[in-house]
Amino acid sequence: MKISVDAMGGDFAPQEIVQGAVVAAREHRVGIILVGPEERIKAELAKHDTRGLDIEIVHTDEYLIEGEHPAYAMRKKRNASILLATKLVKEGRADAVVGVGPTGGVVASAMQVLGTVEGIGRPVVGGPFLGFTPNTVMIDLGGNVDCRPDQLLDFGIVGTVFAQKWLNIPNPTVALLSNGAEEGKGNEVIREAYTLFKNSGLNFIGYVEGYGIGNGQANVIICDGLIGNIVVKYTETLGQAICRWLEGKLVGKLSPADIKALTDELTLKTDLADAVGGGPLWAVNGVACVAHGRSHWPEVAKAIGAAKRAVEVDLVGALKRELAAIRGKVQVPTAQ
Amino acid sequence: MKISVDAMGGDFAPQEIVQGAVVAAREHRVGIILVGPEERIKAELAKHDTRGLDIEIVHTDEYLIEGEHPAYAMRKKRNASILLATKLVKEGRADAVVGVGPTGGVVASAMQVLGTVEGIGRPVVGGPFLGFTPNTVMIDLGGNVDCRPDQLLDFGIVGTVFAQKWLNIPNPTVALLSNGAEEGKGNEVIREAYTLFKNSGLNFIGYVEGYGIGNGQANVIICDGLIGNIVVKYTETLGQAICRWLEGKLVGKLSPADIKALTDELTLKTDLADAVGGGPLWAVNGVACVAHGRSHWPEVAKAIGAAKRAVEVDLVGALKRELAAIRGKVQVPTAQ
Repeated sequence: MKISVDAMGGDFAPQEIVQGAVVAAREHRVGIILVGPEERIKAELAKHDTRGLDIEIVHTDEYLIEGEHPAYAMRKKRNASILLATKLVKEGRADAVVGVGPTGGVVASAMQVLGTVEGIGRPVVGGPFLGFTPNTVMIDLGGNVDCRPDQLLDFGIVGTVFAQKWLNIPNPTVALLSNGAEEGKGNEVIREAYTLFKNSGLNFIGYVEGYGIGNGQANVIICDGLIGNIVVKYTETLGQAICRWLEGKLVGKLSPADIKALTDELTLKTDLADAVGGGPLWAVNGVACVAHGRSHWPEVAKAIGAAKRAVEVDLVGALKRELAAIRGKVQVPTAQ
Repeated sequence: MKISVDAMGGDFAPQEIVQGAVVAAREHRVGIILVGPEERIKAELAKHDTRGLDIEIVHTDEYLIEGEHPAYAMRKKRNASILLATKLVKEGRADAVVGVGPTGGVVASAMQVLGTVEGIGRPVVGGPFLGFTPNTVMIDLGGNVDCRPDQLLDFGIVGTVFAQKWLNIPNPTVALLSNGAEEGKGNEVIREAYTLFKNSGLNFIGYVEGYGIGNGQANVIICDGLIGNIVVKYTETLGQAICRWLEGKLVGKLSPADIKALTDELTLKTDLADAVGGGPLWAVNGVACVAHGRSHWPEVAKAIGAAKRAVEVDLVGALKRELAAIRGKVQVPTAQ
C-alpha cells in the first residue's frame, strides 16, 4: 500500500511531517510518497534511519499557507503539494492521501481532484464531535444548510457506515434530531425524512431531542448543516465559558497545574477542531485523511495509520454499496 | 395593585404559596388574590400575621396536577385555580397573575384567557437561558418550528423590549443566529429575515455563529424554535455530562461538599428550567408570571415581585408600541 503525504502541511513542516512519515513507514509497513520541495525533504530524511523503508519524493515548490482561502490559493498554485498529493490517489499511484492542514485545503483538494461519491453533491462533515459521547456521530456539521429529506437520509447512510467501519459499532442506532420525541414533531423536512428513514432498513430509532446530543442517545444523529454547525460552534464557546468559570471557582483549592490539566481536558472535549479535526473525510470518492495543522510527528504517523485503515476496511466502497442498496429500497423524491 | 396567585400550583401548595403571598403583600405592598380551596387557604393564612395586608380568596376546588396534559386537563377542569386566577386579569380585577407550575398550565391558561398580543400567533419562549451569559436573550426556544422571516423579526422586537425593560439594557444588540458571519450565510428564511432586520431600526449587528451563544456576542439572539429548542435541551445534558466528568476528576482532590457545590452551580447555569423557568411570559396580552413548580415561599414572593415590576414597567404596552412602530417601518411580507 502507498500513502501520499503533503510534506508541507501544518505548522511544523517539513520536519515533523517527514519524521512522522518515517515512523509510519516502519510501524504500519506502508509505502510513502512525500510531496514537496525535494531538497528540504531530503535534508529531513537524512536525519533518520530510512534503511529498508519504501519512501519516495514527488517534487514541487508550491504549497498552501494557513490562512489563505483554499480555493483561491489553489487556482494560483496549481502545483500545490496537497493538490499533487491528492492527484496521486486519482492516478492510482497512491491508495490514500494525508494532509496535515490547512483543513480547508485538504477538503478543497479532495473535492476538486477526487470528487464526492455519486449522488452526494457536497462534502459531508461529521463525526463524534463531543468528547463525552465518543460513540455518537453527528452529521451534517458543515455546509449543507438547506437540506432535502433525501439528503438527510444520505447523511444517515454515511453515518451508519462510518460508525460501523470506523467506530466498530456493529448495528449503529440512527436518529433524526428534532424538537420533540413524538412522531409529529420537527419541521416539514424532518417529518418527510422520518418516513424515508423508517423505510430505509437503517437501525432508525426515531427522533431525539437536543438532550440526545449531550447524552449520546443514538450512535448517529442527523441534522442539517445549519443546526449542526451552530451546535458545534456553540459547544466550543460554552466549553470556554465553563473553563473560565472553573478557573475562578478552583483557584486556591487546586494547584494551578491541576486546574490547567482540568481545563485543557475540557477544552479538548468541547472543541470541534480537536474532536473531528482528524480522520478520513466523509463521502469523498477516495481516501483522504486530514490531521491538525498543529500535529507533531506522532500525530502525523497516526494519521497515516488511519489512512491505511480506511483503505483496508474499504470505507469508500462500503459507503457506495450502502447508498445503492438503501436508495433502491426507499422511494426518494427526485432531487430539485 | 392586585396580583392574583394560583394557590394550588407547584410541589408545595398551598402552604409555600400562601406564605410567599403573605411575604410579598408586605414587602412589595401589593394586594393579593389567592385562588384555590378556601378552607385550606384560610388554614394556611392563620399561621401568619396578615394584619394590615390586602389579601382575599377566590374559592375553587379544582386545580391542575403536575404531569397532566394542560390543555386536556383544562377542558375537564373549567374551574381550575390557574384558569380562574388568569381570568381575574382578563376581567380587570387583577393586574397580573402568578402561577407556580406546572408551567404548561400557566402558559395554556394565559393563551386561552389572555391570548397573545396582536400579530403574534403563538407564545414566544425565550430568555437568558445560559447562566454564563445573563445579558443574552435567545428567542425562540419553544414551539415556533417553521418560522417566516417576519416572525423572526417579531422575535427580535420581543427580545429587544425584554432586554430593555426587564434586563435594563438601554440599546440591546440584536443578531440572527446563522452558520457564518458573512451576509450570504444562513438558510433562505434567515437570509430574508436579514433584510427585514437591517431595515427595522433595531440595533441589528448581523449574523452571529454558534460561538455567539456561548460567549454572549449579542444581547438578543434570534432563531427559529427548532434550533432554539435543540440548543437549550442540548445544554442541559451537556451540563450533566460535564458534572459527571468533574465528579470523577475531582474526587479525592476536593471535599465531597465542595464537589457538590460546584456541580450544583454548573447544573443551575446549564438548565433551562432554572434559567428561564421564572419570570413573565412573553408576547402574552397581559402580565402572567410563572415560577418553578419546586418553588418555596421566597421564590413565590419573588415571582409576585416580578409580576409587580412587569406591570410597573408596562412590559405589555411597550411591546405593543414597539411592534406597531417597527412593523410600520419595514415591508413585511403578508402572513401565509
